[in-house]
Amino acid sequence: MEKQGLLYEGKAKKIYATNEQDVLWVAYKNEATAFNGEKKAEIEGKAKLNNQISSLLFSMLHEKGIQTHFVKQLSDYEQAVKQVEIVPLEVVVRNATAGSLAKRIGVEEGIRFENPIVELYYKDDALGDPLILDEHAIFLQAATQEEIDSLKAQAFQINKVLSSFFKERDIFLVDFKLEFGRTSQGDIILADEISPDTCRFWDVHTNEKLDKDVFRRDLGGLTEAYEKILQRIGG
Amino acid sequence: MEKQGLLYEGKAKKIYATNEQDVLWVAYKNEATAFNGEKKAEIEGKAKLNNQISSLLFSMLHEKGIQTHFVKQLSDYEQAVKQVEIVPLEVVVRNATAGSLAKRIGVEEGIRFENPIVELYYKDDALGDPLILDEHAIFLQAATQEEIDSLKAQAFQINKVLSSFFKERDIFLVDFKLEFGRTSQGDIILADEISPDTCRFWDVHTNEKLDKDVFRRDLGGLTEAYEKILQRIGG
Repeated sequence: MEKQGLLYEGKAKKIYATNEQDVLWVAYKNEATAFNGEKKAEIEGKAKLNNQISSLLFSMLHEKGIQTHFVKQLSDYEQAVKQVEIVPLEVVVRNATAGSLAKRIGVEEGIRFENPIVELYYKDDALGDPLILDEHAIFLQAATQEEIDSLKAQAFQINKVLSSFFKERDIFLVDFKLEFGRTSQGDIILADEISPDTCRFWDVHTNEKLDKDVFRRDLGGLTEAYEKILQRIGG
Repeated sequence: MEKQGLLYEGKAKKIYATNEQDVLWVAYKNEATAFNGEKKAEIEGKAKLNNQISSLLFSMLHEKGIQTHFVKQLSDYEQAVKQVEIVPLEVVVRNATAGSLAKRIGVEEGIRFENPIVELYYKDDALGDPLILDEHAIFLQAATQEEIDSLKAQAFQINKVLSSFFKERDIFLVDFKLEFGRTSQGDIILADEISPDTCRFWDVHTNEKLDKDVFRRDLGGLTEAYEKILQRIGG
């Protein structure tokens, strides 16, 4: 496979075209950002860690029968993915209160939900990625009701697989953000990444945070935390 | 009926006990507030207008078979209502984009929805009454799923009746906020008020705003706008 022109540069990744039909070349970046880009840092080793963790998790999901955009790992910090049209929704799955939700509803972090909750946020930096209802997403033509039903069902299924996978490794998956994309066949499949940038991971014994909250809240070294995740999932 | 001790003073109303079982005495206030209390003014005549408009609308809804807490008008600025336990949710029905929603999703005001949208906001001044999902409301024990289903169904029904009532009077009901309460029998019924404080009313010909946006946005006299509403609905 041959890397071609840069198509898009986001906060955490650069996306290139390739010589293969419907395949993109993703290069993870060392940049860490939080609070809608207000807090920023260049962290040596982050690209490699997230690429490896995400590649491992996508492969594991694939084995469990969940379709994703992941094709293969290309290097330490690069991977090949299927080209999809990204649905402009952040799909957040929550198993306990934390982060923006805890603040929004005025409760402490770490209260477990009886049933996981799926939330949609409209991907728009200028608007601060607001929480929206299905009806708003449909009005905004972000997705159809059918597509929303599909991505929510997938989000619950992915949560089941990931939660049990991490529980076996003494990690509580508190919450995580997914993005989905439309294939050229019109299917909705999991895209983007699954990494400590997009998940909250707490050690089940110590409650130690092993995710981007370490960076957001200045709790210690980011790469040390991400390396613990990589080790526990067998990377 | 005899007015007894003050039970509660809100931004727009004072609530007193009465000598009758399960009946409260509501006195509307002249105070106008907006932006979670940041903007305030005392407006002579507002109490009277809102009490009269709300009494008329509750009576009209009652005739259309919709249960409300309204018992009867007591004076220009007072009314008797059934005592209910207020569900801490603001139930917003929208027929077009406007106000906080237009800002949240980054669209202009006045785009009509194909189907009306009902939203829940958690009644908590300190949190700024955030938009929440059914799942959050249930987690917060604000209401059960059954109660939410009931109040949403009622909200859609009330919207049908109100929209058609106002349309006949050359007013477009853009959106409105309802509150519901639990009766001692455990039923969920419409409570609070329906007035230009809680609705957006636009003249269908001129798009003139005949509601609290006049105050929020300094568009002219509040009582002049509210009086136009009262006149059009036959008060």
